[in-house]
Amino acid sequence: MNDNYFALIMAGGVGARFWPMSRNNKPKQFLDVLGTGQSLIRQTFLRLNKICKKENIFVITSTAYRDLTIEHLPELDVNNILCEPIRRNTAPCIAYANYKILAKNPNAVIIVAPSDHIITDEEQFVKVASTALTTAAENDCLITLGIAPTRPDTGYGYIQIDDDKKCRLNSKISKVKTFTEKPNLELANTFINCGDFVWNAGIFIWSAESIHQAFTKYLPDVDDLFAAGKSMYNTPLEEEFIEKTYYICPNISIDYGIMEKADNVYVYKTDLGWSDLGTWGSLFDNSNKDDNGNVSYNDNVLLFESKDCLVKSPDNKLIVLQGLEDYIVVEENDVLLICRKSDEQKIRSIVDNVKKHSGDKYI
Amino acid sequence: MNDNYFALIMAGGVGARFWPMSRNNKPKQFLDVLGTGQSLIRQTFLRLNKICKKENIFVITSTAYRDLTIEHLPELDVNNILCEPIRRNTAPCIAYANYKILAKNPNAVIIVAPSDHIITDEEQFVKVASTALTTAAENDCLITLGIAPTRPDTGYGYIQIDDDKKCRLNSKISKVKTFTEKPNLELANTFINCGDFVWNAGIFIWSAESIHQAFTKYLPDVDDLFAAGKSMYNTPLEEEFIEKTYYICPNISIDYGIMEKADNVYVYKTDLGWSDLGTWGSLFDNSNKDDNGNVSYNDNVLLFESKDCLVKSPDNKLIVLQGLEDYIVVEENDVLLICRKSDEQKIRSIVDNVKKHSGDKYI
Repeated sequence: MNDNYFALIMAGGVGARFWPMSRNNKPKQFLDVLGTGQSLIRQTFLRLNKICKKENIFVITSTAYRDLTIEHLPELDVNNILCEPIRRNTAPCIAYANYKILAKNPNAVIIVAPSDHIITDEEQFVKVASTALTTAAENDCLITLGIAPTRPDTGYGYIQIDDDKKCRLNSKISKVKTFTEKPNLELANTFINCGDFVWNAGIFIWSAESIHQAFTKYLPDVDDLFAAGKSMYNTPLEEEFIEKTYYICPNISIDYGIMEKADNVYVYKTDLGWSDLGTWGSLFDNSNKDDNGNVSYNDNVLLFESKDCLVKSPDNKLIVLQGLEDYIVVEENDVLLICRKSDEQKIRSIVDNVKKHSGDKYI
Repeated sequence: MNDNYFALIMAGGVGARFWPMSRNNKPKQFLDVLGTGQSLIRQTFLRLNKICKKENIFVITSTAYRDLTIEHLPELDVNNILCEPIRRNTAPCIAYANYKILAKNPNAVIIVAPSDHIITDEEQFVKVASTALTTAAENDCLITLGIAPTRPDTGYGYIQIDDDKKCRLNSKISKVKTFTEKPNLELANTFINCGDFVWNAGIFIWSAESIHQAFTKYLPDVDDLFAAGKSMYNTPLEEEFIEKTYYICPNISIDYGIMEKADNVYVYKTDLGWSDLGTWGSLFDNSNKDDNGNVSYNDNVLLFESKDCLVKSPDNKLIVLQGLEDYIVVEENDVLLICRKSDEQKIRSIVDNVKKHSGDKYI
């Protein structure tokens, strides 16, 4: 494997829309959401390990999840786990990790990926990532992976591809024309019909130097904060420096802070069997169904006169459903949630109500 | 309290329709179905203890439930717990207990009651039972309690009252004209509109001598079997005798074997807040509802956009329902059942399917 290839796994999220399976003390990336026998973060690590050697894989997460990360990735050197004292969105997280990686290898080319997505076509992913890394090593560019959309999903961001062939880096990697945050259904339909829009998978490929230059240009305040730590990275002073820096650092996403502004942003349109598994509905969409369109993950679920339901339950619990259509039924430790699948966006407000009812006990 | 007054609590049932709350190893009578802090058998015992001294209260149950009975009725002398080696319906059970009681007191007057019903108007019950016991002490009669019906319930048996005043034992206790087993809805409606039908509560009052005479006349084979044990009741030989006798005894109900045939059967029409709690629906009917008609039994149940649901769950489990109408949700140890309330009669066949799926593990 190319020693210059690095991976950064972002693992600081809490997966609120996956409650009650996802909890504060064990968020989605540490769960075996699909019942494959591996947590999402472990799947992500193993996938990236096909491209980068493990010494070059870094995980950035909340300090609270350090031990969980060690548990799920026992083969990873603990020095490759970067801890954030508070959540500050993706730009500070990438700035911090980039300085660490630059200190190790100024020629680093990096793939940045969320820890809690699924990619079912790993072969294609390895091919795409390798091409993108090679391209990023040879060009001053910021590449994002764009997923060929299959439906007018209103939960994703969209990227419009510039169809001017002169602007392409190669046959697959085109210039980005616009970024659009989660659109309404009408707009999403327009995007789909238009044909030159793709989903923003939040997977980035760039050289450490290119993203560093972009920070100095588009987020100089963030860059200044982390540049001040240059002499402290990979020393005993790093932790205290990061602690102080995060508290004064602005909360800003890499998309808003850099990708939507930079003039060297490209998109690699591909099809990976990708999903951000952002909601129970997307888990349903990505799971095998029985003859009645029901999804369950163990043999202890008995369904009668029921269809299009998703049941997620412990193996040792017998779940018997009768006469339910289009519901989510999730049993996880001390919580049972039954909710209309079409109303899954209400789970956030349900969680707020649960907090009012019993504090953080079940969150 | 009158030393001649005895009570017999029948506690051998398995409460199959209350699955998964009711299980083979802990049937309905041993459950605190209503969340009152007391099991149904304990409520029944305490209610009857207002009429009979505890020495005169007998429980007849399955050998398998002997220890549970001791646990729920610790103040009861273990010699007052009669054990049936196999289930043989109500006639053998009453014949057996009656010989035991006759041996203790030939002048006994007995109230026979199921262990798993509820009676919310205990004051009225005590009044009615006392009147019936007095009447049964003075007359050769078999009295059954008839409940003024409030709806055309197809789950109950009905008794038609003979309105001939000359046939009355007193102003409340009339001759029975007919017994009808669970009718269909059309017939139940006819009964309700007719006005002289009541529900058969399965609570009987008679003297030990009167029911003994009835056995000799209408079920002589059953009587012969238990008469053969006269010298063995209340001796170390009783258990072995009963074991043998039950295996050769016919399976027959007291209603079919005697009440529907005898010519001295009377009904005491009353209103006790009675329910046999035979199904989840009857539990729902007998429980307090919130503003949306939902029933739950602890504070850990949160309902959103839901109505007319019944939720029975452990205190330490958070249950969150959204968008459910007219469902039963029961969580009990290792089983979760979600079922349309209007389809509760399907629970029996669901239980059969559960048996096919995993044997007796969850039954």
